[in-house]
Amino acid sequence: MYILKYGMVGGGEGAFIGDAHRKSINLDGKARLISGCFSRNWDNTLKTGEKLGVDPERLYKDYAEMAKAEAARSDKIDFVVVVTPNSSHFAVCKAFLEAGINVVCDKPLVFEIAEAEELMRIAKEKELLFAVTYTYSGHITFKHVREIIKAGEIGDVRMVMGEYAQGWLYSGDGGKQGSWRIDPGQSGISNALGDIGTHVENSVSMMTGLKIKRVLAKMDAIVPGRTLDDNSVVLVEYENGASGTYWVSQFAIGCDNDLKVRIFGSKGSIEWSQFGSEDVFITGEDGIRKLLRRGYGAIAPNAARYGRLPAAHNEGYLEAMANIYSNFCDCVIKQSEGTLAPEDIDYPGLEEGLDGVKFIHKCVESSKNGNVWVDFD
Amino acid sequence: MYILKYGMVGGGEGAFIGDAHRKSINLDGKARLISGCFSRNWDNTLKTGEKLGVDPERLYKDYAEMAKAEAARSDKIDFVVVVTPNSSHFAVCKAFLEAGINVVCDKPLVFEIAEAEELMRIAKEKELLFAVTYTYSGHITFKHVREIIKAGEIGDVRMVMGEYAQGWLYSGDGGKQGSWRIDPGQSGISNALGDIGTHVENSVSMMTGLKIKRVLAKMDAIVPGRTLDDNSVVLVEYENGASGTYWVSQFAIGCDNDLKVRIFGSKGSIEWSQFGSEDVFITGEDGIRKLLRRGYGAIAPNAARYGRLPAAHNEGYLEAMANIYSNFCDCVIKQSEGTLAPEDIDYPGLEEGLDGVKFIHKCVESSKNGNVWVDFD
Amino acid sequence: MYILKYGMVGGGEGAFIGDAHRKSINLDGKARLISGCFSRNWDNTLKTGEKLGVDPERLYKDYAEMAKAEAARSDKIDFVVVVTPNSSHFAVCKAFLEAGINVVCDKPLVFEIAEAEELMRIAKEKELLFAVTYTYSGHITFKHVREIIKAGEIGDVRMVMGEYAQGWLYSGDGGKQGSWRIDPGQSGISNALGDIGTHVENSVSMMTGLKIKRVLAKMDAIVPGRTLDDNSVVLVEYENGASGTYWVSQFAIGCDNDLKVRIFGSKGSIEWSQFGSEDVFITGEDGIRKLLRRGYGAIAPNAARYGRLPAAHNEGYLEAMANIYSNFCDCVIKQSEGTLAPEDIDYPGLEEGLDGVKFIHKCVESSKNGNVWVDFD
Amino acid sequence: MYILKYGMVGGGEGAFIGDAHRKSINLDGKARLISGCFSRNWDNTLKTGEKLGVDPERLYKDYAEMAKAEAARSDKIDFVVVVTPNSSHFAVCKAFLEAGINVVCDKPLVFEIAEAEELMRIAKEKELLFAVTYTYSGHITFKHVREIIKAGEIGDVRMVMGEYAQGWLYSGDGGKQGSWRIDPGQSGISNALGDIGTHVENSVSMMTGLKIKRVLAKMDAIVPGRTLDDNSVVLVEYENGASGTYWVSQFAIGCDNDLKVRIFGSKGSIEWSQFGSEDVFITGEDGIRKLLRRGYGAIAPNAARYGRLPAAHNEGYLEAMANIYSNFCDCVIKQSEGTLAPEDIDYPGLEEGLDGVKFIHKCVESSKNGNVWVDFD
Repeated sequence: MYILKYGMVGGGEGAFIGDAHRKSINLDGKARLISGCFSRNWDNTLKTGEKLGVDPERLYKDYAEMAKAEAARSDKIDFVVVVTPNSSHFAVCKAFLEAGINVVCDKPLVFEIAEAEELMRIAKEKELLFAVTYTYSGHITFKHVREIIKAGEIGDVRMVMGEYAQGWLYSGDGGKQGSWRIDPGQSGISNALGDIGTHVENSVSMMTGLKIKRVLAKMDAIVPGRTLDDNSVVLVEYENGASGTYWVSQFAIGCDNDLKVRIFGSKGSIEWSQFGSEDVFITGEDGIRKLLRRGYGAIAPNAARYGRLPAAHNEGYLEAMANIYSNFCDCVIKQSEGTLAPEDIDYPGLEEGLDGVKFIHKCVESSKNGNVWVDFD
Repeated sequence: MYILKYGMVGGGEGAFIGDAHRKSINLDGKARLISGCFSRNWDNTLKTGEKLGVDPERLYKDYAEMAKAEAARSDKIDFVVVVTPNSSHFAVCKAFLEAGINVVCDKPLVFEIAEAEELMRIAKEKELLFAVTYTYSGHITFKHVREIIKAGEIGDVRMVMGEYAQGWLYSGDGGKQGSWRIDPGQSGISNALGDIGTHVENSVSMMTGLKIKRVLAKMDAIVPGRTLDDNSVVLVEYENGASGTYWVSQFAIGCDNDLKVRIFGSKGSIEWSQFGSEDVFITGEDGIRKLLRRGYGAIAPNAARYGRLPAAHNEGYLEAMANIYSNFCDCVIKQSEGTLAPEDIDYPGLEEGLDGVKFIHKCVESSKNGNVWVDFD
Repeated sequence: MYILKYGMVGGGEGAFIGDAHRKSINLDGKARLISGCFSRNWDNTLKTGEKLGVDPERLYKDYAEMAKAEAARSDKIDFVVVVTPNSSHFAVCKAFLEAGINVVCDKPLVFEIAEAEELMRIAKEKELLFAVTYTYSGHITFKHVREIIKAGEIGDVRMVMGEYAQGWLYSGDGGKQGSWRIDPGQSGISNALGDIGTHVENSVSMMTGLKIKRVLAKMDAIVPGRTLDDNSVVLVEYENGASGTYWVSQFAIGCDNDLKVRIFGSKGSIEWSQFGSEDVFITGEDGIRKLLRRGYGAIAPNAARYGRLPAAHNEGYLEAMANIYSNFCDCVIKQSEGTLAPEDIDYPGLEEGLDGVKFIHKCVESSKNGNVWVDFD
Repeated sequence: MYILKYGMVGGGEGAFIGDAHRKSINLDGKARLISGCFSRNWDNTLKTGEKLGVDPERLYKDYAEMAKAEAARSDKIDFVVVVTPNSSHFAVCKAFLEAGINVVCDKPLVFEIAEAEELMRIAKEKELLFAVTYTYSGHITFKHVREIIKAGEIGDVRMVMGEYAQGWLYSGDGGKQGSWRIDPGQSGISNALGDIGTHVENSVSMMTGLKIKRVLAKMDAIVPGRTLDDNSVVLVEYENGASGTYWVSQFAIGCDNDLKVRIFGSKGSIEWSQFGSEDVFITGEDGIRKLLRRGYGAIAPNAARYGRLPAAHNEGYLEAMANIYSNFCDCVIKQSEGTLAPEDIDYPGLEEGLDGVKFIHKCVESSKNGNVWVDFD
């Protein structure tokens, strides 16, 4: 098996998400970290590189330098992982795309709709692969939900309740992980909605295939002194006439990381939650709630194929992310072999990234204008 | 112990709620059914009366006749229970109040705000007691929530998520119990919001003491062919600046009778659900979720005093309703003895009934006008 | 409808279980309390009688006097409820049977096997009805389990795990409810096993129809200073070769009243718990766990017919007990009309009572002899 | 950071557990696979080696050859991972120990007590490290339980209920994973008890520190045609006088991989389960059940230090195993640096392995002799 080479921008010491990406990739061993610009602080990059066993020759002070230098090598990286603060996603991704290197970027993709569209244009022109790590979409039960909805198991989807509740920013400034999130300079026009609300939007979208027609958002900054939202509710109308409600909070003491999607159709319903993502609950017209667990024979093959362990030998967050990387790596290899087909791609990409950016902008517009309906397109 | 005498209007054969009221009252035996006008159908009234052991002399063809006849007796009923279809609540309640008889009326109280206000006026003038059976408010854990919020245990309440989801009207006409609910002629201007949404409004109001400032509602009739709402979301702003979201549905397959209230404060949160009402979950600033069960030593005395059984010897729906009746009966006796103090009253009354009627009207107004904010007063 | 008359022995002020019996009977109103000997303390009997509205003429100082006096009246009670301490069950039940009065007796029935057999003999001779209130057997989901096992839904039952764990006697003397239980003078040869272990034995027996062949018991008195068991494990072999394990504890902090039965068959399994008795979980060969709730269409008719409320309008402990009384009252009436058929009887009776007594004796014998197998017959 | 080199015996194509070990090690990247004898089938070894990127020069036809060849190299492996069928554990482990190579061996360690003692002797003599992968002991909440019991949080441990229930062998031969387990030739004297019962024994032992004094076991072969146990119950007496009950089953339809330990002390109790191992439930004398989650501030530092992700970003089976490897790798490095202290070792080793072997033998002896008590030493 060919083991891919990857580089990373961001993910220096103390950065949680970069480490999670590396561990996820390690899990299957389909790619190996061989290059990096882990921090704007050169010492941090050096230290992180040493700790991770990266050849110092392939450590860079600057992402632009890295993109150019890597592009020029015969043993260049097959893809770069971008896990910098959101505000620099656009510039970094653009630099690597222009250098002809495939990209995996953390969500939310970028700040501006036009930025997302520009990345789409370049990626298309250069025929490059681009994944946006909506981690939870990697869960096997998440994929199973998508498959059974597609197969009509719950009939027409007519109503959706999505929520992502956390409590860790219920007061104060949230420490290292929280302070930049509540700072408009670093988080852009939204905090909670951008950070976790986009997971709700993405989950509903990828599970159901529903397209948003318009939104009405109420974005609150509950904790005194904040300017960015820490609790939001969004009413959604989909193009097919279905209704949705998304609740997003970082103020909710007692909630840790509670992404939950309930999908109601004309013949059944589905309840899926991130914390309980080894299981999914499905109810049909007889009202009997059925627990389906990753690893069971009834899991759809298109979802089950990602499984590593038998049922109830728990897979978790890193496996979900690893599933995205696993498929992305397979696609990179197929692309290099010229055998990539559209249906091979089973990870969220630039389109999903753009949807997230749009979602944030439309919600902010709605909320600023007094909680009025705003069309999505 | 003096055993009170009560009469009932409505609750003939096949009516679920009348039977539930009678069983609840039976539970403690503080009052005995001795009079009734169970149906507009005289045969039904006769049959029901016989089955319940009511003296035929005290069966009536007509509620107005009953109010007059009972008022004239020396052994008249101490109170009447009104469990007719919602459309006749006003007329029936008014007749008994005017006859000088205490009233217990099922919710929602009446259709029009002015009607609720008129009942308030008469009850006050005649010094009569009036309970509105928001059944769930009788749960001991419900009362415990109210007590600890009052005591400041979770700090300032800043956000509330309430929901009441059912699935039984996910299609078709719902049979005997459902058909009148989706008929504007019998249900008035709302179906789901009026029937179960008022329970959310009432629960939040009684638990937190928060007053609604304004609402923005989206009321949907999801099932094709319906004109009344079967799924609604209401954004709420309270007078203290807190935010709330109420979701109400009869379309939600997989939900049976799922009233759930999550209350988030500056120092903690509470999760309470009707189906799990023997327990309540409380989380403080350490994030540790604590399960408190009816019957435990930690239950507030003002709530615990209603307990009949030790912890985990389950009390349920009838006990919750019985707690309302138990307190109402005590108050009726105290009133007759001239010892009733305001703090003795621990049941929802006309004020709560009026709030419910207002809530429905304001939400309908908001929804009709394109989901705009409507002030509550 | 004819309303039956009943008397009660035991159940004076401060006695939890007598009150629960009265409330259960009140629930349906099929019988009315008109006679009593509530306590060995005459003042208590008088006070309790007054509070309950019993004619003082029908209050008695002594159960033997009551049995005789009631038997002599033309308006005598239709049945007596015996809720005295266990040590007097035999004498009281015998007195009423000999007086020709039907009996409902709390469990465990009596102390000695011979006593149970004598009651059986008299009841048979006098053609009297006798119920033993294994309360939990009244739950609708309990009956549903029995029905589906009978119908072969889980194949042959081959293994059973039963447990009844409480924590309230984890130390000290347990107060009024606990002190007599840990006193050999009042509880007989066993405490926890007799008090709650018999519920496990009864539940498994009534649900599965399995007959015990032999037992091996380890009965511990964990809390220092106790002589009677507060924690026991019993290995069971059934006549059909299946295996069972029963765990019973009053030492288990964190458990309130946790009777739970897991039944494993060759084609499926069932999990039922008292605290969650509105639901029952059933798994078939596909491994998918299904939640079935009281009130659902799929509940077996022989179980569903006891329902009072729609699904998720919780019924609890009192309803379970009331279901026993409801069926018992129906049988008493049919018996008096001469129409009673064996299949009408759907409550635990003397045979189940005898099984419980045997179970205790055989377990004690096993435990005393060093945890050896003891045949059941 | 120095990256260790490891080899693997067993774990060829189609072997679940070898793959899990590799992925666990990959997770942190502290060691890299560079050598292997993956199968007795040479083609399988070649294919597996190629897929895993192992230099063909370091693939071996035979474990004995591998031990010798690796021992002779200057760049020899730092440790070997033994994931062969249980029947060959002893021979393989012995070969590597004698060659001076540290060992990680899957559980159960070996078949015979004398074998375990011999491995202990050699490891001690050669000053080698030896881990036995009782995977679940790696969970952070597992370690937290150990820490709080040590700290006296629940008082004296007096009673334990342990269970490990699976349903996958409820009939038939269980396919590739199951067939060797029910074959005495490959599994030795026990199936379920050896395979999963040892996890219960190990969990209780490592969590509580209790030493077993004697056991009484009932080992059943429920499925017709089996000779080895598929369902067992073991009564346990510990040296401190506490009581335990372990239930182990592969017949339990509806159970997937349900290892659960409930520990009852004089001041509190703990409930821990493998499937829900992100959480642990703790109850104190007030009866209030508290949910503590991996990632919370209240988790004991000695447990929390293994955490990779924030609370509710689920860690699972592989992380638990990775925690064992993470600590083992640290110890190997410290050992090579001469800085290893006894308290550094935080993984189950030969002593735990020996306990498991003893447990199986004593239980089998008890069961064969008619379920009698058998002393542990």
